[in-house]
Amino acid sequence: MALADTRFEDRRRKLSTKLAERRIDDMLVTHLTHVRYLSGFSGSNGAMLVSKDRTAAIATDGRYTTQIGEEVPDIEATIERNVGVAMLSKAAEGHRVGFEADYVSVAQLERLREACPEGVTLVPVSGVIEDIRLTKDNLELKRLTEAAELTVEALDGLLQAGQLRAGRTEREVAADLEYRMRVLGAERVSFDTIVASGPNSAKPHHSAGDRVIADGDLVTIDFGMHRLGFNSDMTRTFSIGQIGELEREIYEVTLAAQLAGVKAAVPGAKLVDVDKACRDVIAEAGYGEYFVHSTGHGVGLDVHEAPSAAKTGTGVLEEGMTLTIEPGIYIPGKAGVRIEDTLIITSAAPKVITEYTKELTVL
Amino acid sequence: MALADTRFEDRRRKLSTKLAERRIDDMLVTHLTHVRYLSGFSGSNGAMLVSKDRTAAIATDGRYTTQIGEEVPDIEATIERNVGVAMLSKAAEGHRVGFEADYVSVAQLERLREACPEGVTLVPVSGVIEDIRLTKDNLELKRLTEAAELTVEALDGLLQAGQLRAGRTEREVAADLEYRMRVLGAERVSFDTIVASGPNSAKPHHSAGDRVIADGDLVTIDFGMHRLGFNSDMTRTFSIGQIGELEREIYEVTLAAQLAGVKAAVPGAKLVDVDKACRDVIAEAGYGEYFVHSTGHGVGLDVHEAPSAAKTGTGVLEEGMTLTIEPGIYIPGKAGVRIEDTLIITSAAPKVITEYTKELTVL
Repeated sequence: MALADTRFEDRRRKLSTKLAERRIDDMLVTHLTHVRYLSGFSGSNGAMLVSKDRTAAIATDGRYTTQIGEEVPDIEATIERNVGVAMLSKAAEGHRVGFEADYVSVAQLERLREACPEGVTLVPVSGVIEDIRLTKDNLELKRLTEAAELTVEALDGLLQAGQLRAGRTEREVAADLEYRMRVLGAERVSFDTIVASGPNSAKPHHSAGDRVIADGDLVTIDFGMHRLGFNSDMTRTFSIGQIGELEREIYEVTLAAQLAGVKAAVPGAKLVDVDKACRDVIAEAGYGEYFVHSTGHGVGLDVHEAPSAAKTGTGVLEEGMTLTIEPGIYIPGKAGVRIEDTLIITSAAPKVITEYTKELTVL
Repeated sequence: MALADTRFEDRRRKLSTKLAERRIDDMLVTHLTHVRYLSGFSGSNGAMLVSKDRTAAIATDGRYTTQIGEEVPDIEATIERNVGVAMLSKAAEGHRVGFEADYVSVAQLERLREACPEGVTLVPVSGVIEDIRLTKDNLELKRLTEAAELTVEALDGLLQAGQLRAGRTEREVAADLEYRMRVLGAERVSFDTIVASGPNSAKPHHSAGDRVIADGDLVTIDFGMHRLGFNSDMTRTFSIGQIGELEREIYEVTLAAQLAGVKAAVPGAKLVDVDKACRDVIAEAGYGEYFVHSTGHGVGLDVHEAPSAAKTGTGVLEEGMTLTIEPGIYIPGKAGVRIEDTLIITSAAPKVITEYTKELTVL
């Protein structure tokens, strides 16, 4: 537990430093993911006040009295239903208190304003905690790697057990895969599992329905688990029996694009260039118009987070960031392919944490 | 499909009427749950502009071009990544456009303001669509009843298969229950499944961990499924082998409180009185301080929605509302009990849609 304690303190210290730089006295943290990141508290109602002088307060409601004592032994919790207001009331007169403008709703801000202590000024703040989250510390990388490896293990188990085959519904396959993730330690899925078969594979965000998987289908499986606060995300597309010429071609093109994207993901690379590395391969093969989304995103506390590898956007990759590389080709009404890995950016080649064969697997 | 079309049109018509009453020309709907409620579109990025003159527009991004065509055949979709801005741009000069103040973040509003067409005024609106959702139409009640019945079926299957027993971990039991819900048609769980055994049962919102269920435990299972846009929510507490005197007593008191709450849930009843009906039984038995949450909430598109049966609050029950009745007693470090049903309020006695035995079941 000593290790965990230090981690949360370290993160809060980084935040305190950033607050001081911005002349913010205290940060009112209401986004639950951030409360967990900064304290370890995993309940469904909580808020913190983190100050530039490195003190911190936390609040939750009566349902979590026992839990918060166990999870956050180093800060005495305030027990109060309206946690945001409770934390704001701790701010001293004359303080500028930052609130999370990307997560606080307009109505919520109105309520905070009404409850704001005399002489306290509320200041919108964006991206400060996200900036700290952008490069992962060692414990985060460990958790992300563990989640990714368990995700691969679940997929491998599904295939080894012959659970992905003609005659089963998409939903059954998704249920089996989710069950495997859950038993391996997932607290929940990171997002609705996608099992998109045959013509459904042409819908990038089809979930998993009643369609019966048939011979000659491509089946795209995009899935991930949430475990100990962190997420995983990977996609593979499989061939059920013999597939047609078009299916085989878009598979090979997508794979080539994916490999090009992974190769481009090095420290210092512009994110637009990582996207371009993928996109060019698909465009050159004549399928440019069928790659309808961006190349990738960071994975961490959120399954979709910064950075973003897209046609537009700014920034460069740095060591310790995560990024998915997930090109796809979708021919409406016919078939689609997506292949996705999650990478950790390192000084050498990126570390693919969702390591699993990408050669076309025929089932 | 004709039935579904009418439903969405009906809901939009109700919204148009409310907009006219409030002198709002158009409502910018960005909360995804509301986009689905008003259109049937189930993708993860979408927005609508619903006008007081009963016209409606909808937008999503390129990933959902095929899907939105199938799900919303009656409105031509705008395909654009930034769906909120795309819809706002359709508002005519001089129009007052309402936005969802409870869901739009402060930063999001800033971006909408920057993109706001000349002569268009953005107006914060709260609770208008929620008001329409408060009493359910027949199709909603049908969906909610189906989800509740399938939830009961999953629990019954778990018990019949002997999957809840000493020697198994909470996590394994949760995984089995979730698998059953998934196979029965759940798209996902409504919330993290709670399997709280022994001393963990004293934590109202414990999820499901590595503790091995043991003889003499109370085990509280609180779970629900999300299916076709709607949720279910129920809780039962079970006895594993022979439990102690305290455990038996708090079970009996909680059950008496739950039955009193169900009985009180009739049209015209004040929500505070429904809460009181439950709470009084527990207080009179001397356990008042151990009932640390409110009595219940509505269930619909959200698993927690209006109305709220709590110590404070206003409003009365009406026919067509839903409400959970879920009293609990939690003795920290020792044991806890919660028993929860979801009800539909009818002119007669409430219809318990999570019908399943509440007598203490010994496993």
